[in-house]
Amino acid sequence: MPETQRPLVICAPEPRTLDLIFTPAALDALKAKYRIIEAEEGAIASLGDEILGQARYIIGQPPLSAETLARMPQLRCILNVESNLINNMPYEVLFARGIHVVTTGQVFAEPVAEMGLAMALNIARGIVDADVDFRKGRELWGGEGNAGARLLSGADVGIIGFGDLGKALNRVLSGFRTHTRVYDPWMPASILIDNGVKPSSLEEVLTQSDFIFVVAAVTSENQHFLGADAFASMRPGAAFILLSRANVVDFDALMAAVASGHIVAASDVYPDEPLPLDHPVRSLKGFLRSAHRAGALDSAFKKMGDMVLEDMDLMDRNLPPMRCKRAERETVSRMRSKPVSVN
Amino acid sequence: MPETQRPLVICAPEPRTLDLIFTPAALDALKAKYRIIEAEEGAIASLGDEILGQARYIIGQPPLSAETLARMPQLRCILNVESNLINNMPYEVLFARGIHVVTTGQVFAEPVAEMGLAMALNIARGIVDADVDFRKGRELWGGEGNAGARLLSGADVGIIGFGDLGKALNRVLSGFRTHTRVYDPWMPASILIDNGVKPSSLEEVLTQSDFIFVVAAVTSENQHFLGADAFASMRPGAAFILLSRANVVDFDALMAAVASGHIVAASDVYPDEPLPLDHPVRSLKGFLRSAHRAGALDSAFKKMGDMVLEDMDLMDRNLPPMRCKRAERETVSRMRSKPVSVN
Amino acid sequence: MPETQRPLVICAPEPRTLDLIFTPAALDALKAKYRIIEAEEGAIASLGDEILGQARYIIGQPPLSAETLARMPQLRCILNVESNLINNMPYEVLFARGIHVVTTGQVFAEPVAEMGLAMALNIARGIVDADVDFRKGRELWGGEGNAGARLLSGADVGIIGFGDLGKALNRVLSGFRTHTRVYDPWMPASILIDNGVKPSSLEEVLTQSDFIFVVAAVTSENQHFLGADAFASMRPGAAFILLSRANVVDFDALMAAVASGHIVAASDVYPDEPLPLDHPVRSLKGFLRSAHRAGALDSAFKKMGDMVLEDMDLMDRNLPPMRCKRAERETVSRMRSKPVSVN
Amino acid sequence: MPETQRPLVICAPEPRTLDLIFTPAALDALKAKYRIIEAEEGAIASLGDEILGQARYIIGQPPLSAETLARMPQLRCILNVESNLINNMPYEVLFARGIHVVTTGQVFAEPVAEMGLAMALNIARGIVDADVDFRKGRELWGGEGNAGARLLSGADVGIIGFGDLGKALNRVLSGFRTHTRVYDPWMPASILIDNGVKPSSLEEVLTQSDFIFVVAAVTSENQHFLGADAFASMRPGAAFILLSRANVVDFDALMAAVASGHIVAASDVYPDEPLPLDHPVRSLKGFLRSAHRAGALDSAFKKMGDMVLEDMDLMDRNLPPMRCKRAERETVSRMRSKPVSVN
Repeated sequence: MPETQRPLVICAPEPRTLDLIFTPAALDALKAKYRIIEAEEGAIASLGDEILGQARYIIGQPPLSAETLARMPQLRCILNVESNLINNMPYEVLFARGIHVVTTGQVFAEPVAEMGLAMALNIARGIVDADVDFRKGRELWGGEGNAGARLLSGADVGIIGFGDLGKALNRVLSGFRTHTRVYDPWMPASILIDNGVKPSSLEEVLTQSDFIFVVAAVTSENQHFLGADAFASMRPGAAFILLSRANVVDFDALMAAVASGHIVAASDVYPDEPLPLDHPVRSLKGFLRSAHRAGALDSAFKKMGDMVLEDMDLMDRNLPPMRCKRAERETVSRMRSKPVSVN
Repeated sequence: MPETQRPLVICAPEPRTLDLIFTPAALDALKAKYRIIEAEEGAIASLGDEILGQARYIIGQPPLSAETLARMPQLRCILNVESNLINNMPYEVLFARGIHVVTTGQVFAEPVAEMGLAMALNIARGIVDADVDFRKGRELWGGEGNAGARLLSGADVGIIGFGDLGKALNRVLSGFRTHTRVYDPWMPASILIDNGVKPSSLEEVLTQSDFIFVVAAVTSENQHFLGADAFASMRPGAAFILLSRANVVDFDALMAAVASGHIVAASDVYPDEPLPLDHPVRSLKGFLRSAHRAGALDSAFKKMGDMVLEDMDLMDRNLPPMRCKRAERETVSRMRSKPVSVN
Repeated sequence: MPETQRPLVICAPEPRTLDLIFTPAALDALKAKYRIIEAEEGAIASLGDEILGQARYIIGQPPLSAETLARMPQLRCILNVESNLINNMPYEVLFARGIHVVTTGQVFAEPVAEMGLAMALNIARGIVDADVDFRKGRELWGGEGNAGARLLSGADVGIIGFGDLGKALNRVLSGFRTHTRVYDPWMPASILIDNGVKPSSLEEVLTQSDFIFVVAAVTSENQHFLGADAFASMRPGAAFILLSRANVVDFDALMAAVASGHIVAASDVYPDEPLPLDHPVRSLKGFLRSAHRAGALDSAFKKMGDMVLEDMDLMDRNLPPMRCKRAERETVSRMRSKPVSVN
Repeated sequence: MPETQRPLVICAPEPRTLDLIFTPAALDALKAKYRIIEAEEGAIASLGDEILGQARYIIGQPPLSAETLARMPQLRCILNVESNLINNMPYEVLFARGIHVVTTGQVFAEPVAEMGLAMALNIARGIVDADVDFRKGRELWGGEGNAGARLLSGADVGIIGFGDLGKALNRVLSGFRTHTRVYDPWMPASILIDNGVKPSSLEEVLTQSDFIFVVAAVTSENQHFLGADAFASMRPGAAFILLSRANVVDFDALMAAVASGHIVAASDVYPDEPLPLDHPVRSLKGFLRSAHRAGALDSAFKKMGDMVLEDMDLMDRNLPPMRCKRAERETVSRMRSKPVSVN
């Protein structure tokens, strides 16, 4: 296709890079189909009108002023590959013009769900401590080593938040015949029922679960909504597995509940990342630690590029994007998960 | 029911105990419905004819001579709750008389499957080492900590042996969209296909899997059938997870394959149990250790009692047992898994 | 709640009625939570500003001019319970203002899927003709009556269109181990793969299926896209099941293909509804007829009201609607299914 | 292989034929691997000792006396391809010698399950009468034609009997989110629970189901166990679908219950087959008729041959048969389904 006929794409994917989110083959496909302008995040406004005037897509979420947007009459979509929506562009203008804003966070659903299930099984069977003991020659054999062991099969499971992560968790749990309750105030009950889970109040999830998975995004309304009372209301010995953002819990209260022996826990996220070397969670018994590793697999990043290509293909044909998740007028200003600083 | 009308059951469940395999409620139900004679394993022959002559069931696998069996004309079934069949009774006599010999090993299928899946996810995500590093303040955050991480979802999985364990594994894998090959020479291909897996040769399973689960029982024919050549034929970086008995592998060759970095592995079983304190597997990198803990959960033992009660209820009504697994004339002498010494 | 504080809803659900789409309990809930103004479809503009100025929702799809919309500053959503989008309001104005336009057609997915499966099984087993013959005493017994009979289990299935209907069909087929190909040019391949079906070209679906289900909506681009060549390319004896709208096929060509014995067919929809009494499809052998009955179940209509209530509840809380399907800027003008005249 | 080394198989498959139960390829495989002696059913005893003395398998169920069996020291298995066990051989002798008796009736499970589901959907949607009306120009369109229509999705389903047929039914129902109760007094509750259905009394199944499927084999104990009281206890308008044998019901009472309008029904089986031309069921409204066609598909018969080959392969290797179903000492004399006279 002649250079001037290929649709123009501005790429400013920081903190990602094109090499991180596209396989070599996908990057070739991108370049074959589109004219690519790579730009520093802060430099969009300084691009000339011959570029801005023809740009159909932006990959990334660079700061954009109303003035810059006004210079981009062909713009159809901003494909945010960081996935948390920052308040750095006039979303209302975008929505009014019918410019889609989409995110690719769904790529993390499967890896996070696998990690969440792994954490649950680890806690249920004491796998880390058993291996550490085995290394040191103090392992307990057979039933003697299984004093606190229990099954996930047939257990009461609670999931807090039923977006892409919650659904992926529900899928990897499908072979375990669990009784699964879900609390998600943004989700109609009938959709939960269609997914085979039981719509429940937060209290029901907390008090009637053997394993609780927290996969709710942080919003302006739910910061620290899980505190000492919540943990106290859990079944003795139940497992609390935190996979989304540390800000949804009172982390000190969580550690206290574990330290007291009332519950056991696992977490992939922390109030500060990286965490101070002297943070008490490092030595807390009954707590399984993961350093924000649940989602950040190379295969997940590469899937971002595939999703971007699929949705641009739809939009090239004047169809709406379907693969990425759209930002919504109602909620764009309520999402408060901090962007990552490390991929 | 008057004492003399209740069917008589001889209980000699060593190494189990009645309290291990029956919940209090189940034990009450057992005693309400049956006349219970508890006996030392070696003392069956010394029981009087008023007992042997009326015994309908034996719970356990005490040594039995042809003479003793001849004194038990009412015997319908031997319910072996250890689950490995020892050569300590004339099975041909039992089969000829139509006396069932059944085992309850199926109770371990679910706990072992959960442990097997946990091991696979642990290996795939490096969970044990990551937690140990986190304790020591040397954790890597985000993608930096995921150099070798990979997903189970969509992976090529191989299962060696498709009895109760293999089927349970296949069930807990059902949410992962794996491509699963099975090698089981005792199983017709069409049954494997009905279970949604691909009947395969041992070579295909070894060479085309990202994760291999070994759940084959030891028989007179398959001791040490997985050796250096087998491990060398595996995909680089593939995971080998041993869940049944150590005797099916050449354990030294397995350790060498892991030590070389060619594969990673996990095992619940060992050539000697307990294992010497200086055994090299204790410090082997890339190897996840579990001390024969995969099946021995209290909830599994308690399920034995439930199975025994369900099958005795069927046989009381002159129906064949369905819940426990029957010993077969063709294979009883070919099973070679060693009985456990520890519950 | 005081009358003036309850959100105001204008109800103009023609051709539906409130009694058709709400159960008595749901109607009570609607009236308790909202102030209801029932209006004739053509009379919206004549409502006073004290009503229009406060209206939060419209249930129905009455004609709306830009002027009338300008008088409705509080409007959040038009809930179209007919479900086909007519060109009788300025959609661009609605989209620019962020007013949602949603449809409830998903309620028909389950009943249509069940009817489609029933049609496939009927055709595969000749159930209608067999019962008619039995009534007349000319039935054939056992295998003699099964000359053309075949199974759906394990068959090659093709689905054209993978919206709500296609997904529902895929769900009711889940127990049949079919190999299912899907053609849907509006859907990214990866979403089809996630649903366990094989993304395919139209030609692949036509030439490699034993059963083909057509559930594609009519658009400005696909009218009569299935004609004589398409039917000729199908496997001999394959079944063609038409469930969406007659306009996607060349109906005469379909009848000819059935009359020739090349394929068999079933249809719920016709070029004219009702159909002339002398229409040849009435006596066509190898054709199963249903008079646009696949979706129109009372339970489906009642589900519309439930969906409307669930989405209004979300929007009352300033959340986006999730239960109903949103009209899209890109496609609203391309949908061409005729509205129904009969419920 | 030299003629004398190939295992010898006596084939007396009446009323089947080898061509009915083996595909050409399977028949070639049979003949390549085994020495085949075809015999009239009544002529086994007249075969010479050079044949009887070497026979490893019998395909069929010819009458066999204890004397004839005594002349067959190598016999390992009787593979009964009719599938109902007739009292024409000394089963006790066979069991005592460890000679397996297996049946291939499982091949009918899938076709019967599909027919059963088709019947349920037909009844729920009135498909036969609607097509007949359409042919005659008196069809009702849309909702007007759906007065009595209902969904199977989400319905309460009852299954009586949970052998191969019941399990196959449960499988084809898996996409319908039904609440399924099962009554099967020969099956432990825990196996039903493992299959995702609810173990229930006969009364619970009868009184709490919208659709009842009867797939119980006839035994000496259950003849006519479903009579007027059973039908009267069913929910008004519920559907009764009879798939196994007519002898389990009081057929006149079933017809009366349908004639009264209390229930609707479908049946594949009848007190007499073929049925007299003046039998009242032929004109009974609310009754869907099938002339014992549910199972007798050519593909099902061909599967018999495949099963026979798979099990003979196992037994050739001194393994027990797994694919076919074994006759049991306890129940062989209690099965009372009449053999078919027509394939």
